[in-house]
Amino acid sequence: MLRWLPLALAASLVAPALAETTTPSAAEILAESPAGDWRPLDAANTLYLDLPAGRAIIELAPAFAPKHVANIKALVSAHYFDGAFVVRSQDNYVAQWSQPDEAKPLGAAHKTEAGEFDRPIGPDLAFDRLPDADTYAPEVGFSGGFPAARDAKEGRAWLTHCYGMIGAGRDNDADSGGGAELYAVNGQAPRNLDRNVTLVGRVVQGMELLSVLPRGTGDLGFYEKPQQRVPIRSIRLAAEVPTPERADLETLRTDSATFAKLVEARRNRHDAWYKHASGHVDVCNVRAPVRTRHR
Amino acid sequence: MLRWLPLALAASLVAPALAETTTPSAAEILAESPAGDWRPLDAANTLYLDLPAGRAIIELAPAFAPKHVANIKALVSAHYFDGAFVVRSQDNYVAQWSQPDEAKPLGAAHKTEAGEFDRPIGPDLAFDRLPDADTYAPEVGFSGGFPAARDAKEGRAWLTHCYGMIGAGRDNDADSGGGAELYAVNGQAPRNLDRNVTLVGRVVQGMELLSVLPRGTGDLGFYEKPQQRVPIRSIRLAAEVPTPERADLETLRTDSATFAKLVEARRNRHDAWYKHASGHVDVCNVRAPVRTRHR
Repeated sequence: MLRWLPLALAASLVAPALAETTTPSAAEILAESPAGDWRPLDAANTLYLDLPAGRAIIELAPAFAPKHVANIKALVSAHYFDGAFVVRSQDNYVAQWSQPDEAKPLGAAHKTEAGEFDRPIGPDLAFDRLPDADTYAPEVGFSGGFPAARDAKEGRAWLTHCYGMIGAGRDNDADSGGGAELYAVNGQAPRNLDRNVTLVGRVVQGMELLSVLPRGTGDLGFYEKPQQRVPIRSIRLAAEVPTPERADLETLRTDSATFAKLVEARRNRHDAWYKHASGHVDVCNVRAPVRTRHR
Repeated sequence: MLRWLPLALAASLVAPALAETTTPSAAEILAESPAGDWRPLDAANTLYLDLPAGRAIIELAPAFAPKHVANIKALVSAHYFDGAFVVRSQDNYVAQWSQPDEAKPLGAAHKTEAGEFDRPIGPDLAFDRLPDADTYAPEVGFSGGFPAARDAKEGRAWLTHCYGMIGAGRDNDADSGGGAELYAVNGQAPRNLDRNVTLVGRVVQGMELLSVLPRGTGDLGFYEKPQQRVPIRSIRLAAEVPTPERADLETLRTDSATFAKLVEARRNRHDAWYKHASGHVDVCNVRAPVRTRHR
């Protein structure tokens, strides 16, 4: 059987099967990385989304969506999502979940929040820029682990709709979202949604549980029959789960030298399989690796 | 339940639910399109890939990969893929299928073909360029319905690894593919594979049957146990199937005025949901629609 080498990072950190490299591979770069280039996931900003098939883990982005993140945490504390459902699975677009029981109490949460589509650039916001051209934004890069874009003239920065990013669905009114309805990008980055919806985080583990859900046959990929919906057992904040039950994860700092090397390795692949190094990388074709914490 | 409007084309041609547009929507543009802006799929270059869950339909790209396409047609005529399996499903990367029975006769087909990673630019090759910047290539656009890129200085053109594109797996040797092992892109476009593998076509219908396959847990997303593999009943050339059993499909010509309007509608969304028109579109965020033939 013929094999062919993949993007090592696409399936997290798999080493190329037939590498005869002269330059280090992604796996080698990570194996050599100093402990300080990693940071543990913050339990106060990590969600566990429990589906019948397993757990997806989400890292929230309070630096970009403070109100939505606080509101989602209030919803989660009120067990709002217990008994919710994935109601939509649209091919090459999004999986989306919500609580069909509209009477479900919101706890201390609000029904809506003002849209947080972008935010000011400032010294408090890290931005590690990629040198590569982008179709949609003047500058792209990474901010605290998240793919992001920036417009220096406008003085604004925003998260980008890459694969696995989580956003807060809304109605036509810009301020009609709030986090009670969430979606995950399951295909080619729908970057024209950037600055139109509040992105609230990224799936750091278990995205494959959401991406394989049967596609809904209704308009926009909604499931046509209630029994087709995929139940959500619960969404919990890691900090509200007993410590022994938490996943002990860390992510590579996107402002680290190791991440810069990783991006360069993705930009120019040198292993034996590659014949043509692209010399470029899209902000949605590289992401901050996540692994069980090394102690 | 909150709803939010999607890329109309992502799920083919769904009309926005709450459109109050002043400019035409994608659905309206297509509804008004003249018949001459469409072309029927060529039965001599259309494959039916039959999975247990249904049929995926593939349009082959002989203009870019004449040897591979001829070889795949020879394999199909020899019923080579009957009893093949999807052996790999890697999240946000590819689903890949092949014949585990290595002794299976190839018929008139060859085991391998010289790589067809790019081809010369020429008057025989349509190229409808997008004005938008691209991360990977000097120029991107569409050629005969397929997403493509071009480098005028080098005088070369090639297909791009967008969602749903089909490629011929190969080993480390550039000329070690041939079409006996094929893959479909199931996530963010892995554009660094461009000019490294021979792309042979695109899925025009039924991609959702391939994209939802359970992810393999082995390295590179290979299924670890043979019983996890997904059987392929057969792959047939439409021209070798009795006419009444053929899907009667047509696709919008990418050199048509209608397609140009559609691209513009994707670049600048004007419906009531959108607050920020991106003003740009990625070559992998728009595709030539396919529908049942209007007669």
